[in-house]
Amino acid sequence: MNDTSERSWWGWGLTDAALSDDECRRYGALLPGLPTDPITPPTVADLRLRAPRIQAPPALADRCSIDPRDRAGHTYGKAYRDVVRALAGRMDPVPDLVVFPRGEDDIVATLDWASDADVAVVPYGAGSSVVGGTEYDGGDHAGVVSLDLSHLDRLHEVDRQSRAARIGAGICGPALEDALRPHGLTLRHFPQSFEFSTLGGWLATRSGGHYATGRTHIDDFVESMRVVTPTGVDESWRLPGSGAGPSPDRLMLGSEGTLGVITEAWMRLQDRPTFKRSSSVVFTDAEHAFRAVRGILQANLTPANCRLLDPGEAQLSGASRRGEWVLVLGEESAHHPVDDALALSVEIARDHGGTVPAGTHEEPGSPPPEVRDGAADTWRSSFIRMPYVRDALARMSAISETFETATTWDRIVTLYDDVRAEVGRAVSEITGAPGLINCRLTHSYPDGTAPYFTVVAAGQRGAELGMWDEIKAAAMEVLTRHRATVTHHHAVGRDHRPGYDRQRPERFAAALRAAKHELDPAGILNPGVLID
Amino acid sequence: MNDTSERSWWGWGLTDAALSDDECRRYGALLPGLPTDPITPPTVADLRLRAPRIQAPPALADRCSIDPRDRAGHTYGKAYRDVVRALAGRMDPVPDLVVFPRGEDDIVATLDWASDADVAVVPYGAGSSVVGGTEYDGGDHAGVVSLDLSHLDRLHEVDRQSRAARIGAGICGPALEDALRPHGLTLRHFPQSFEFSTLGGWLATRSGGHYATGRTHIDDFVESMRVVTPTGVDESWRLPGSGAGPSPDRLMLGSEGTLGVITEAWMRLQDRPTFKRSSSVVFTDAEHAFRAVRGILQANLTPANCRLLDPGEAQLSGASRRGEWVLVLGEESAHHPVDDALALSVEIARDHGGTVPAGTHEEPGSPPPEVRDGAADTWRSSFIRMPYVRDALARMSAISETFETATTWDRIVTLYDDVRAEVGRAVSEITGAPGLINCRLTHSYPDGTAPYFTVVAAGQRGAELGMWDEIKAAAMEVLTRHRATVTHHHAVGRDHRPGYDRQRPERFAAALRAAKHELDPAGILNPGVLID
Repeated sequence: MNDTSERSWWGWGLTDAALSDDECRRYGALLPGLPTDPITPPTVADLRLRAPRIQAPPALADRCSIDPRDRAGHTYGKAYRDVVRALAGRMDPVPDLVVFPRGEDDIVATLDWASDADVAVVPYGAGSSVVGGTEYDGGDHAGVVSLDLSHLDRLHEVDRQSRAARIGAGICGPALEDALRPHGLTLRHFPQSFEFSTLGGWLATRSGGHYATGRTHIDDFVESMRVVTPTGVDESWRLPGSGAGPSPDRLMLGSEGTLGVITEAWMRLQDRPTFKRSSSVVFTDAEHAFRAVRGILQANLTPANCRLLDPGEAQLSGASRRGEWVLVLGEESAHHPVDDALALSVEIARDHGGTVPAGTHEEPGSPPPEVRDGAADTWRSSFIRMPYVRDALARMSAISETFETATTWDRIVTLYDDVRAEVGRAVSEITGAPGLINCRLTHSYPDGTAPYFTVVAAGQRGAELGMWDEIKAAAMEVLTRHRATVTHHHAVGRDHRPGYDRQRPERFAAALRAAKHELDPAGILNPGVLID
Repeated sequence: MNDTSERSWWGWGLTDAALSDDECRRYGALLPGLPTDPITPPTVADLRLRAPRIQAPPALADRCSIDPRDRAGHTYGKAYRDVVRALAGRMDPVPDLVVFPRGEDDIVATLDWASDADVAVVPYGAGSSVVGGTEYDGGDHAGVVSLDLSHLDRLHEVDRQSRAARIGAGICGPALEDALRPHGLTLRHFPQSFEFSTLGGWLATRSGGHYATGRTHIDDFVESMRVVTPTGVDESWRLPGSGAGPSPDRLMLGSEGTLGVITEAWMRLQDRPTFKRSSSVVFTDAEHAFRAVRGILQANLTPANCRLLDPGEAQLSGASRRGEWVLVLGEESAHHPVDDALALSVEIARDHGGTVPAGTHEEPGSPPPEVRDGAADTWRSSFIRMPYVRDALARMSAISETFETATTWDRIVTLYDDVRAEVGRAVSEITGAPGLINCRLTHSYPDGTAPYFTVVAAGQRGAELGMWDEIKAAAMEVLTRHRATVTHHHAVGRDHRPGYDRQRPERFAAALRAAKHELDPAGILNPGVLID
């Protein structure tokens, strides 16, 4: 984060990076029927925030804030529906207090106090949840605390031999990479939220990262974790692998703040890659493109990047305007050249009817390693910018949101077609006009893949939230009917609860509730998320 | 299993494959001070089995057996201490009944009946547990049933596109591979117990398989599971990846029959490899050998085979008699030649001081793909034969057993030295003479590795069990002091409970007990394993 900018309380990222009113208008003009002018975000002073209903206990007083800016900034995550509500000044779930613990003792004290005082505690990393993961709607607690872990941001220890480090859960992506760089190491976990999300948040939500194949989720990089629950502190042993009973870490991974507060973790790291190659391959139709990705994965190849953009997504991101599918492939290594590995994937893609556009450097030997092809670069910068554009569209009362899933290869074509048809129909019916429904495959596996959909449509000022909720319900319906997961890496939060409740096996739900009751008997931790 | 042989009720594998009395004597002669003649295994008719204390309910009568051979064969697993007790005719934990369900309904009926009648149910795959996983010692139930899942042995469904199959949990390794072969597919899960263990057993115990790197545990090959608990049947969705809450499957993986009975699973499969290369590299000392393996893993290479034998292990298995460390490397693919991939690993091993013995075929192009080097082949056949030799040694009243663990790279040298020193001291003190303590690395990771130790020593007839239990306690002590896992892939069972209770985080233990109580309120499932 640079010094002159600060986090937006209502929208994505940094205030300085938000689009100007004129830029909003230019994006708004791409969709027919939108208002001429963007919504002006309210200032914090404009907001009517409910007065705090609870007081911090004296021992924690200097860790707590009731500053309206802190409270407003901790009310929502950064989903489209969060931005819409914030822009409208609707701040009902505002926390009474924001607690900034300086260390584990403060967290223990907070949970002790909250358990006694019936205060809900919502763990908060950097607040970029897009699934309502940090928004209180848990019922009738006496008060709500947002537990902001940003001070737990230290790199505690590096084990160079095992290539692992003990890291505070509150550290954000850039600070983590800065701390690891002098050791020649990297976590290489780059979700789209990289700048505005924390290690603890990634772990609690089973975040999806840099690697498009192989070790796609943060789960696979965890050596051990330390977790503060309302009934005690747990720490698993640092182990490269184990078969001793069900994995303790796997119960906490994806627990989304409902079972405990992750305070630190030993993470498996990577050497910083020095050899990199990327290439793009284009296809004229879905069948061949999907088959190519499947072919690469089923050859047990594990390219670091293997992202397939459908024609709409390729166009939106600027990767191709020719109505074709674009597969962006990349290999990397800190140890050996990767030309041959990339060539194997490109060859499979060609065998399935793909063509390599002129100017794409996939041939071994020719270009310097850092030269990358245009489609990949364009897509990358667009990837980082997308959430800011989403906010600009929201200010123009457009609907702009994403949802993602995963399914096996036998179902992918049907799922892709059905999602586009049914969500498209919902968009037309609800907004009165067709919208864009684009898709990219973000992560792929030998047995299936994770499609990520973007919806852009003209909304109606004042009715955006209801419209999106209806469209989202249609999306959940088609996904769950196909038994595709309600989330591959965005987490469940509050927004995916209806689908999650259908997806989750019933006896597992009961076991999870029992575990929750054991660890959090007062039911204060992130109520409403995952478990009632 | 061939038609003319049958499973040994007291020892490993098939009765036909057991070593003759003369062979026992030849092995016994290698250790000073053992008796001249092997113990003659009792016949089933010799055994004094407690009369069954319970009767099968009429609806299950034709699924139940009280045949002494069935009951004797289901009393123990196949650990050294099991064989010793069986040879001595000590059959205290004998189950009252063996139930052979024909399908899921029979399992539901069994669990319903058992829950009402306070009957313990011990799920039984093919009975090759080496950790007391199938032996009842859970307290004072009214009776004990061994639930033998061998009839749930069908390949139900193959999804060729996703390269996955729905498979009955009771199928043994060879039958599974036979069923998959016509589809050109393989699970490629080859634990040492391959012939005498089942898919359900692998899943329940987080079995370690064929791949020495990357996807080492069966866990990573699970797409979805179906589990019968005493309170209902669960089935997870088939998903290639998901981030929807804590993984339901990961709670059942490693649950060792305490939470439910796994009846079938969708498993991720492989194409049958057609390209294979292997090579061995030798080292003069531990430091260089460990560093070479670490170097290979930290280059993010994932050879299918990467097994390091210490000098004792190399000698015992016949891989090398020159007092050197032997690293057996192998690469395989169904899609592309693997010469280059193998060459990368071999080069790293050489960079760390390894030398490739003459006659080892690692150079690209030269030998036909099926030609493998001698050390690898010798080691493989010895690997399959080892448990039969173990039984022969047990019959000579020698002590012969293994234990395994995993630790991070920063601790491996110390752990290796300390285990050999402290377990060696225990062997000397307890048996009065030094024994063999060998080690191999079976699975390795970028952040650590899994050493597997073999102990062979002269026991004393009639006192073998107590001697081994003391040696094992010394081993547990040194492992847990170093915070190395009590098991990397053998499971916890009853034998590892003391160490497991130290290793497992306390709040996780409480959560697991709560989940157990929810799923199995009568506490009938495999009591004593994992949870009290």
